[in-house]
Amino acid sequence: MKAVLELCSQAKTAFRSLPFFSAKQRTMLLISLADILVERCDLIEKENRKDVDEAQATGLSGAMLERLLLDHERIVSMANGVRSVAILPDPLDQIFDERILPNGLHVQKQRVPLGVLAVIYESRPNVTIDVAALALKSGNAVILRGGKESLHTNAALASCVHEALATCSMPVGAVQFLDDPDRKRVDELLSMDHYVDMLIPRGGAELHTYCRKNSRIPVITGGIGICHLFVDESANLEKALEVIVNAKVQRPTVCNALDTVLLHERIASSFLPVLLKRMQQEKVVVHIPEPQIKKFSLHCSEFVRSMKEGDWDREWLSLNLNITIVSDLAEAVDFIREHSTAHSDGILTEDEQNANQFLKAVDSAVVYVNASTRFTDGAELGLGAEVAISTQRLHARGPMGLQELTTYKWVVRGNYLIRE
Amino acid sequence: MKAVLELCSQAKTAFRSLPFFSAKQRTMLLISLADILVERCDLIEKENRKDVDEAQATGLSGAMLERLLLDHERIVSMANGVRSVAILPDPLDQIFDERILPNGLHVQKQRVPLGVLAVIYESRPNVTIDVAALALKSGNAVILRGGKESLHTNAALASCVHEALATCSMPVGAVQFLDDPDRKRVDELLSMDHYVDMLIPRGGAELHTYCRKNSRIPVITGGIGICHLFVDESANLEKALEVIVNAKVQRPTVCNALDTVLLHERIASSFLPVLLKRMQQEKVVVHIPEPQIKKFSLHCSEFVRSMKEGDWDREWLSLNLNITIVSDLAEAVDFIREHSTAHSDGILTEDEQNANQFLKAVDSAVVYVNASTRFTDGAELGLGAEVAISTQRLHARGPMGLQELTTYKWVVRGNYLIRE
Repeated sequence: MKAVLELCSQAKTAFRSLPFFSAKQRTMLLISLADILVERCDLIEKENRKDVDEAQATGLSGAMLERLLLDHERIVSMANGVRSVAILPDPLDQIFDERILPNGLHVQKQRVPLGVLAVIYESRPNVTIDVAALALKSGNAVILRGGKESLHTNAALASCVHEALATCSMPVGAVQFLDDPDRKRVDELLSMDHYVDMLIPRGGAELHTYCRKNSRIPVITGGIGICHLFVDESANLEKALEVIVNAKVQRPTVCNALDTVLLHERIASSFLPVLLKRMQQEKVVVHIPEPQIKKFSLHCSEFVRSMKEGDWDREWLSLNLNITIVSDLAEAVDFIREHSTAHSDGILTEDEQNANQFLKAVDSAVVYVNASTRFTDGAELGLGAEVAISTQRLHARGPMGLQELTTYKWVVRGNYLIRE
Repeated sequence: MKAVLELCSQAKTAFRSLPFFSAKQRTMLLISLADILVERCDLIEKENRKDVDEAQATGLSGAMLERLLLDHERIVSMANGVRSVAILPDPLDQIFDERILPNGLHVQKQRVPLGVLAVIYESRPNVTIDVAALALKSGNAVILRGGKESLHTNAALASCVHEALATCSMPVGAVQFLDDPDRKRVDELLSMDHYVDMLIPRGGAELHTYCRKNSRIPVITGGIGICHLFVDESANLEKALEVIVNAKVQRPTVCNALDTVLLHERIASSFLPVLLKRMQQEKVVVHIPEPQIKKFSLHCSEFVRSMKEGDWDREWLSLNLNITIVSDLAEAVDFIREHSTAHSDGILTEDEQNANQFLKAVDSAVVYVNASTRFTDGAELGLGAEVAISTQRLHARGPMGLQELTTYKWVVRGNYLIRE
């Protein structure tokens, strides 16, 4: 087993040779990887079977198992994902902010890869391929540490990535796999700030907090979404209802799913019954503050519950929804600022001025007017794919695609110029 | 004394009201601050005198004392600095990456302030005003923690900033001062990641390492510069000599001063004697590897010394310079990659191809062709001023001005659009 230091150092060495490969070579690498994934389908399925069998033996639940499973169709879809990243515009080498200063200095910024990335993630093995593809397309090296449930699958996928690198005569060390369930090795990784430039934890809040607390490597925090929609008094309520249903129900287990609906009090008495009825049809359990249950003479039931403390600050990830009434836009904004994780929050309104006021006051990574929060996703917002959704403010916010895996350097030219 | 939590929470509250002030209001705030600094000159000098007297009593050294001192001229120059930041173009609200996606979603990114900044710095009190001006101009709130040597001065400067905020009816809480030498309060600050978005340590390597290790807030690391110049065989040696002298001698105590010169072996025997002679005239002590001292039959003296272990990896910050001979450009690049802190490194050459090869292979924050490393500075590179010089790769590299104190949010509009 490779020492963590060795693995980081190999990634850095590989990274240093990557600038010498062209955009075309990086594109061809990804196409080769896609082909190899399809060719090695049987092997991948076989190794995945081992993980699935072990997971079943340890009593892993249905949803987790489902995420772990790779069949022929999923592997082909993974390969197609790699192909779609391959043909994205090259993110490197652009020149920007170019100018000639009064002293004659020629200054420009040039887009370059971010460096060595480290990604810590949980069960879904497709992350292995998604992240490797995005990292390599943007000229980065990457250290991957997948979940212990998918060790065999990830090893098989790793071998495909290494085969592609070798086939294209590119440095195999550019993608490193930390295939060891020992948490101590993760701690060691977190101290490697001399080798690793960015750490992306992909998992629950606990993993993020752990990394932020223990990592010397700059961390991208994200992926926790307590998402809100405010229904303004001017909203088209029929259409607003469909947006709420979509945001809550289309895929309730993900970070951009809706958690809380705020209703303007002027439309509450007409809209609340419609909303509750529809939520019950969609099997969504609704949580409402006790005083409002009384005020609107609602009956608590399997689908209408009195709010418990902390429900506002909870990412539901399931068919549950908070509903509350606010007296105006300002109160809605204050509520969102207090309870949002600054992931995705929106307003449903026909009033342009209210829309603009909301957009100005709510400073989440993605702010919406009349659209579902479910659009917060790299592919949906036009990035092709994503390595993470950042909810911090440094470096990148929202879905992170190829551009967010780059940085810049200053390139400065003079005629033997000295500072006065 | 305010609790750290209270101070952070007040900064965040103030930050939330800042988007509602216009670019003009932020500009006027800075002009008001500049006026107040000049008006309060006597008070500032009086308070500064206390710090200087205390520092002298505790035996603070000449250079440190010199940095601490504020006289009338320096205060006026500080005020002029604020005026020059005031008139810089507004960094906020620009729209970029705008597009309409095939599903009709209207997507744009909007530049917004970074949030609540925290800056930990050492003796120079002008940092207090520089940072406050840059932060406020870019719509950020900031928590300042200056050195214990400048407590009285910083308190006086703080009162000027607060007076300016109050005069302009802007939230006084936007600038917070942590005026307490207790290190425990710094530790507390480092844990306030729910309130603070970016931490900038300005000081020695020890402070940076401490912050990186202990902060939960994202840290900008920088300010440590082990800077290199490579003299290619094609360089105009007469002009190259002047660039080397400038980079080493013009202000040797700062991070962008030169630490190591690499000479191509083909020009070493002719250029080395000239370089050594000039360095001696400039009172620069030169450090050369023992084998090269022998090879070029040099005599060790007060100004020519045999290299000691670790000299390559030392930021001199003084009239000392490493010189070594390399066999070619590739060896120079390898040397720089090994020993540079990725701050500022350059090539002196007449050969365009070599220049380009160097620029591609050396991935420092600022890379130079035929110019002094001393240009790595916000004002020199056209940013007006700087809050720090980043040597990390995340978020910003090199001098950080107004733009680097901003981030963006995604603004997404639809016609009650739902995800399929």
